[in-house]
Amino acid sequence: MSTPMGNGAGPHRPTMADVARVAGVSLKTVSRVVNHVPTVDPALVEKVLAAVSELGFRRNDMARNLRSRSTSGTVGLLIEDLANPFYSAIAAAAAECAIDHDAMLITASSEEDGERERRLLLSMCERRVDGLLVVPAAEDQGYLRTEIEIGTPVVFLDRPPTNLRADTVLIDNEQGAREAIEYLVAKGHERIGVLSDWLRIYTMRQRLSAAEAALERAGVPYRPDLIRDGLHTIPDTEAAVERMLDSDQPPTALFALNNRLTLGALGVLNRRRSDVALVGFDDFETAALMPHPLTIVSHDAGELGRVGAELLFRRIAGEQSRPQTVVVPTRLVERSAG
Amino acid sequence: MSTPMGNGAGPHRPTMADVARVAGVSLKTVSRVVNHVPTVDPALVEKVLAAVSELGFRRNDMARNLRSRSTSGTVGLLIEDLANPFYSAIAAAAAECAIDHDAMLITASSEEDGERERRLLLSMCERRVDGLLVVPAAEDQGYLRTEIEIGTPVVFLDRPPTNLRADTVLIDNEQGAREAIEYLVAKGHERIGVLSDWLRIYTMRQRLSAAEAALERAGVPYRPDLIRDGLHTIPDTEAAVERMLDSDQPPTALFALNNRLTLGALGVLNRRRSDVALVGFDDFETAALMPHPLTIVSHDAGELGRVGAELLFRRIAGEQSRPQTVVVPTRLVERSAG
Repeated sequence: MSTPMGNGAGPHRPTMADVARVAGVSLKTVSRVVNHVPTVDPALVEKVLAAVSELGFRRNDMARNLRSRSTSGTVGLLIEDLANPFYSAIAAAAAECAIDHDAMLITASSEEDGERERRLLLSMCERRVDGLLVVPAAEDQGYLRTEIEIGTPVVFLDRPPTNLRADTVLIDNEQGAREAIEYLVAKGHERIGVLSDWLRIYTMRQRLSAAEAALERAGVPYRPDLIRDGLHTIPDTEAAVERMLDSDQPPTALFALNNRLTLGALGVLNRRRSDVALVGFDDFETAALMPHPLTIVSHDAGELGRVGAELLFRRIAGEQSRPQTVVVPTRLVERSAG
Repeated sequence: MSTPMGNGAGPHRPTMADVARVAGVSLKTVSRVVNHVPTVDPALVEKVLAAVSELGFRRNDMARNLRSRSTSGTVGLLIEDLANPFYSAIAAAAAECAIDHDAMLITASSEEDGERERRLLLSMCERRVDGLLVVPAAEDQGYLRTEIEIGTPVVFLDRPPTNLRADTVLIDNEQGAREAIEYLVAKGHERIGVLSDWLRIYTMRQRLSAAEAALERAGVPYRPDLIRDGLHTIPDTEAAVERMLDSDQPPTALFALNNRLTLGALGVLNRRRSDVALVGFDDFETAALMPHPLTIVSHDAGELGRVGAELLFRRIAGEQSRPQTVVVPTRLVERSAG
């Protein structure tokens, strides 16, 4: 059975009661599934989702009866930390794109906490957002499947989802990391330190493995003491760089896999007036003003927000094509004023 | 006539029809006023607002009939530019505070455009936000009076409103600018250049007049050629600083009245390897990494967002006290690593 997709509230638009009847469950059970009550029997959830899919039920049809407009006119954006310039560039671009589509953006920070991610996204769904833009932090995004089934499109930014298929916009981490290592190797460096945040973050794993592969291809001996991960704050990074520089065979160059790691390394290199070379992933506004020679794996973070929001608004408008992945390129830029 | 303020939907809660009857106008007129249709006769607007005030009508009472929760659970934040770290710090703190109050934050950028401000704020009101946090850009915020009357509290951040009384959180611009000039004068400077953004921005007028007063108190001769306003972009600022430094009597020190102006000045001073002293209003993450000696008028931008959001949620919870103004202090910090 198929359902007409027009905007009017036609007589055949399926209701929650229809879903309950087809699924053979109570209306209360349908309501609990649709509202993400976590204690529903998984077998009942499957029955409800099957009926939702068969009938083409969409929750926003319900909202149409309650409101003068057919949508809430808001979309949600979940990022790690709105105060980090990488994420505020994404948010600014997504907010602008939302306004161009007569919508407004709800924003919240996951703080890289999976449980908080889940809670904030479901809280956005409770507010009947028309769609979600998500930089995922949790290990699994399967909990969004119900929401997607009942008609809230989701686009992932910077990191792909786990246990879910959906549109995704990524940075070309492999290209960026490879070019950074090739640049340092071409400059004659053989002891290259790599600074990484938590490896449970997708971009860190991608960048680190691409860097390791590039080092191997260049014939640079593998040096586990020069690879440090788990550095999530600037003080963590500073301490790790200090230790690396104080070791018997210190690196002659560092590759920092995100903007926070770059700032931590810069602090130490500046204080020591060190001539250790530095390449950092992610551009930042004052990169060109730094006294220390600095090369940046540059990309347009705003582009992630823009492309992701455009994909989302096409889905909200009804586009039904298969989920796609878009990759935003990187560019190596020598940024030093020195 | 007064109305009980409890949460239940009591029989005496005034409706738009009551407002229409008391005002002696049609229901349609009430609806047009409540929904900010701009073409309503001002005399009719006054009649409707008088009835709103007499009856204690609140629009959210209407929403209670349509939704399972009594509020939309969202608040709006309008800032100049989400990608500017001063504003993203405000947004991050306000978003966090919203979550603590079971609400979520809708964010948009005015781009310092008064008409855009009005359009975006009324667009937030259409989405039935529970309250608004606003860095005002327009010359007049009188257009928000209806919205405030029908029960949407508004708190202003960084700049006070015009033609409206409401809670306001400001930075201590006078203290910051005075201490900056006193610091430079104590270092022996007599030719101090001042760099300002557009003077229609409240903070610029406050900081510039406090700087001029401090220069006068210090007995430094007034030099109009050393005061430049209207610098809104980094390239504008760079060009102005170049011209100032190339003049017959160049400044020996510069005072930049916001973070963008500081970055513009730093770019020129770095390129020229100039020893002109620099004090900048607004801290920024990489200030301590700059090669050029840099002193900062530091303040906690997040504090503006936090204090403003706390005030807003107290109003949303029903606090009826007179509007208050809170001033966040500044602190002069020598930030140079050099």
